[in-house]
Amino acid sequence: KEHDAIRLADKGGCSDCGRPMADKMADFALETQGASVISTRCSETYRIRSACVTLFGFPLWYPSESPRTVIQGYPVLLPGKCWAFHGVQGILVISLSHPVRITHVTLDHLPRYNSPTGRIDSAPKDFEVYGMKNDTEEGTLLGTFTYDENAESTQTFQLPSPSDEVYRYVELRVLSNWGHVEYTCLYRFRVHGKIAST
Amino acid sequence: KEHDAIRLADKGGCSDCGRPMADKMADFALETQGASVISTRCSETYRIRSACVTLFGFPLWYPSESPRTVIQGYPVLLPGKCWAFHGVQGILVISLSHPVRITHVTLDHLPRYNSPTGRIDSAPKDFEVYGMKNDTEEGTLLGTFTYDENAESTQTFQLPSPSDEVYRYVELRVLSNWGHVEYTCLYRFRVHGKIAST
Amino acid sequence: KEHDAIRLADKGGCSDCGRPMADKMADFALETQGASVISTRCSETYRIRSACVTLFGFPLWYPSESPRTVIQGYPVLLPGKCWAFHGVQGILVISLSHPVRITHVTLDHLPRYNSPTGRIDSAPKDFEVYGMKNDTEEGTLLGTFTYDENAESTQTFQLPSPSDEVYRYVELRVLSNWGHVEYTCLYRFRVHGKIAST
Ligand SMILES: [K+]
Ligand SMILES: [K+]
Ligand SMILES: [K+]
Repeated sequence: KEHDAIRLADKGGCSDCGRPMADKMADFALETQGASVISTRCSETYRIRSACVTLFGFPLWYPSESPRTVIQGYPVLLPGKCWAFHGVQGILVISLSHPVRITHVTLDHLPRYNSPTGRIDSAPKDFEVYGMKNDTEEGTLLGTFTYDENAESTQTFQLPSPSDEVYRYVELRVLSNWGHVEYTCLYRFRVHGKIAST
Repeated sequence: KEHDAIRLADKGGCSDCGRPMADKMADFALETQGASVISTRCSETYRIRSACVTLFGFPLWYPSESPRTVIQGYPVLLPGKCWAFHGVQGILVISLSHPVRITHVTLDHLPRYNSPTGRIDSAPKDFEVYGMKNDTEEGTLLGTFTYDENAESTQTFQLPSPSDEVYRYVELRVLSNWGHVEYTCLYRFRVHGKIAST
Repeated sequence: KEHDAIRLADKGGCSDCGRPMADKMADFALETQGASVISTRCSETYRIRSACVTLFGFPLWYPSESPRTVIQGYPVLLPGKCWAFHGVQGILVISLSHPVRITHVTLDHLPRYNSPTGRIDSAPKDFEVYGMKNDTEEGTLLGTFTYDENAESTQTFQLPSPSDEVYRYVELRVLSNWGHVEYTCLYRFRVHGKIAST
């Protein structure tokens, strides 16, 4: 009795159509892949939702999102499903999943059309990215970037002068936001590049 | 040493292609945004899966889905990942995330092609939507609608006579379904409109 | 006072555009639908991520993924979000959600462009699928298939000689992988066919 393998070809082939380029690159800041948040350098988490109610038996308490949310790769960006920190300046130090020669970083924020206010003033604006070989050194500035509130939800930035240096840690420093006076929200941050042979 | 910001443009631009219009509007019934289910007015939750088995160390007990499932914004509709209630009539009272001038509502159900039976007879058919300014008042009928079992999975309905009234609560009353004699299943319900300046 | 139902038509209609055919078929191995993993016949789970660190108050311990991951229908494939077993041979016995006349099976693996190494050498290569009417019988070979490391991420296979037999259990036997010497990873496995009238 013989069984032949038959694989069905998927025609159409526009499966990439419309997806941001970041979705087609490896992300070395992804938690499932082994990355982790190791510090926020005392950035203070902001509790957007403070509701703590139980009614008719449903638990209605919303824990604030932790910084880990930023590297967990949720398939859709849901309003409020982000790490919020007080003010406009916040820091995230990430232990990468692998040693990497970094070429790009990506920042995601909720699309404006999904925002209840029609604004995304809690989105980061200017931010810096640093690379570190170990978790004690100072860090090398890899680039200063600006998230554009009027552009696509997922924005990928090329490093201005990518080097052959291999980094194991990345520090994201948000410097300003788009106008929200109380907090800034990070939905997702990704790190792209070439894995270093170890 | 200077670092210039370089943002990569995402060409293609068909990222909206094929997505239902509801995905491009704010949803004021979304739990991550601050909405909550405050009552089901004694609708009886139906336990679709009653399995409670442990074999080879894997826990195989399936808790029934709570009404919160309906406003949690899951990125894909998985069969059975819905709030099921006994019979054809069920009620969901939602505290909206913000005070809103409501213009549309959306009801999602599992696509027929993903249903194991090829039918979606547990889908809601006729339903009413009420708006309330507080959680004690009667509620104003905003519209009576019909979910079409033969149309798209995600169906958005425009209110017949949208007003300037600002509502903080919405009541969804399902009146009938597409033929299932035991239960009706709600996958997702969304509320759209303009946020009221507070 | 009368309220007329107005349903908004979603134009565009390319919502299927680019999605694999497997996404448009019912999946009888899906946990939310009632399926369950009942055995792995002593396949040894491999712990890809062994990190167990707590730093600055963040819990950083990664539990290994269980075989249930393979039938939970996650909307995106995240690297490492898979059931890994030691070596190249592993077995998964699934109790289907309904009795089925099986026509196709689907195997998903992480796309190569999302892999940190650019390789998917932990992907299954050759595998067999068996059908069982009860959980004690031997099992009938339904087909031997090969997952192609160079083809689409989601691959659907037609059974070479589909019969009228109704099966309640399916056994997946992975026989080889694409070169990884330590482990093989299963991201998702699906079973398609016609539900049997019961
Ligand atoms: K925002
Ligand atoms: K159904
Ligand atoms: K892999």
